[in-house]
Amino acid sequence: MTHSQNIFPTKEAAIDTTALRVAIADVEAAAMRLAGVANQTPVLTSRTVNQRTNSQVFFKCENFQRTGSFKFRGAYNALAQVSKEQRQRGILTFSSGNHSQAIALSGKLNGIHTTIVMPDDAPAVKQEATRSYGAEVILYNRLETTREAMAQSLVIERQMTLIPPFDHPHVVAGQGTAAKELIEEVGSLDLLLVPCGGGGLLSGSAIAARSLSPKCRVIGVEPERAMDATCSFHTKTLHTVHNPDTIADGARTPNLGNITFPLVLHYVDDMVAVSETAILNAMFFLWERLKIVVEPTGALAAAALLENVVTAPNARIGVIISGGNVDLQKFRQLFS
Amino acid sequence: MTHSQNIFPTKEAAIDTTALRVAIADVEAAAMRLAGVANQTPVLTSRTVNQRTNSQVFFKCENFQRTGSFKFRGAYNALAQVSKEQRQRGILTFSSGNHSQAIALSGKLNGIHTTIVMPDDAPAVKQEATRSYGAEVILYNRLETTREAMAQSLVIERQMTLIPPFDHPHVVAGQGTAAKELIEEVGSLDLLLVPCGGGGLLSGSAIAARSLSPKCRVIGVEPERAMDATCSFHTKTLHTVHNPDTIADGARTPNLGNITFPLVLHYVDDMVAVSETAILNAMFFLWERLKIVVEPTGALAAAALLENVVTAPNARIGVIISGGNVDLQKFRQLFS
Repeated sequence: MTHSQNIFPTKEAAIDTTALRVAIADVEAAAMRLAGVANQTPVLTSRTVNQRTNSQVFFKCENFQRTGSFKFRGAYNALAQVSKEQRQRGILTFSSGNHSQAIALSGKLNGIHTTIVMPDDAPAVKQEATRSYGAEVILYNRLETTREAMAQSLVIERQMTLIPPFDHPHVVAGQGTAAKELIEEVGSLDLLLVPCGGGGLLSGSAIAARSLSPKCRVIGVEPERAMDATCSFHTKTLHTVHNPDTIADGARTPNLGNITFPLVLHYVDDMVAVSETAILNAMFFLWERLKIVVEPTGALAAAALLENVVTAPNARIGVIISGGNVDLQKFRQLFS
Repeated sequence: MTHSQNIFPTKEAAIDTTALRVAIADVEAAAMRLAGVANQTPVLTSRTVNQRTNSQVFFKCENFQRTGSFKFRGAYNALAQVSKEQRQRGILTFSSGNHSQAIALSGKLNGIHTTIVMPDDAPAVKQEATRSYGAEVILYNRLETTREAMAQSLVIERQMTLIPPFDHPHVVAGQGTAAKELIEEVGSLDLLLVPCGGGGLLSGSAIAARSLSPKCRVIGVEPERAMDATCSFHTKTLHTVHNPDTIADGARTPNLGNITFPLVLHYVDDMVAVSETAILNAMFFLWERLKIVVEPTGALAAAALLENVVTAPNARIGVIISGGNVDLQKFRQLFS
């Protein structure tokens, strides 16, 4: 995942932290668009987890979402709303991660040409997966140019529309539908734990929770090695961490965005960070006990709970498992 | 899993293939006993699988069952029905597999002392897991005695009650509740694919399907390397394969039982066998695409479908995923 700021830089100080560009009505409208298209993902429970935490814990399993992560919700919601002119010129994004696959499939379903910019040394498997969803993959040589320059030239020359991975109101609204489904299925919560990269899933989830379960505390979870959002939240000033060295690749985003930062400040109750070991332990626990495959970023919120970074006895706790795209080779490396 | 015949041998020819000792009423009664105790496991679907098979496929995920496999259903149903006298003397079984953990937990939930006979070289992890569910583990030295002799002495001396892993009417009735739930949730099926070891899950599933979805064909799936039940089914004569060398450890049972063989002959429509490679491919596919952890035996039915051993275009197909107890080290060995 990469932040759109890289293409269209703005002064960080210029972020208006009071500008809330997404509301519950947007999440509700997104849910209507996604009905029958996105998977209503299962909610899993575990007696072992309940005993260990002395609480009732509900895992919302977006690893079972189409393309293997929650990203499909936001991408589809965005592509379903582009204008006729934008459709004709096509949609662009850059990422070697889950957002690209989500954009590719959403383009296919909406009959819109999509283009994904990737480095030419991106794994062949990822290139193929993206093409298999119907997207055009444009490769660039890291030594000759940057993806930002590459993408910018496409935006200008071909007038393609960029859908960034999180800093877009339609993307945020789409991501909020997972928490909406969770609360509608299991009832009100006392606490909701959400992985945080660029803050799209986190802010969308917090908007949904505030409306549907008003007393629910919403806490975002980051890797300790990439705790820009935690710092930004506590200081109310945007912090940036470039190229953080964490196994949670979806949380390597350098900072929150123009749209997500104000939403996080307004709707989120707290932010915490977890160690790399905690992430691995959580992945392993979910694998061994819940029998589900979860990628490192997808295990962030579970890690905060299972490793006691957040404790909330006698509570009803929602935990968003955000994705499951970890290939077997990578998985074996992590646990070797 | 081991067959109770090892303790109380009968002449194979003595099996009365017309004696049906379990009926749908028994499955329904089991479902009542299991309500609120067993997990109503999720049914997963995959657009990729539907496209690949040109059918609608419903995966009933017993890897999400308590203790990680369907075995909990049969064990609990059996232990819930033992007499006061039997309760006082305790329950015995022998297995280093899923049935033991299921018996141990069912004993704990019913307040019944359970004893599991295991070789003293059984992995410490398995011994610990069984003890953690509250069972007494009795170890024996493989060089000095057999588990059958060990168990037999306990049955005789302590008058404990043996609950075998499949050849028991209450066990079979309990196992049938998974297919019952599946059909009640998704509606009638054209085909139901079920893993087969000793035939407890298979015969229970077939009884449920015959009643709830009468036109549904039920097919049992075995490893090619342990295709005793397939041979028995086609020849109507009990075949035995001792210590088969298959990764599907739950299907290493030497043969169908006195109770399961007649039920399989009466209710099951066909039996097929799959290769070791097909099992591994299915496990890997379920891991990568469905994001679920499935043990080799648990992937048998999926393997038959995904590797085109069984084809049924334009059909509504149920596939029972029977368990997910494969530890990380074992999993890595399988894919190294």
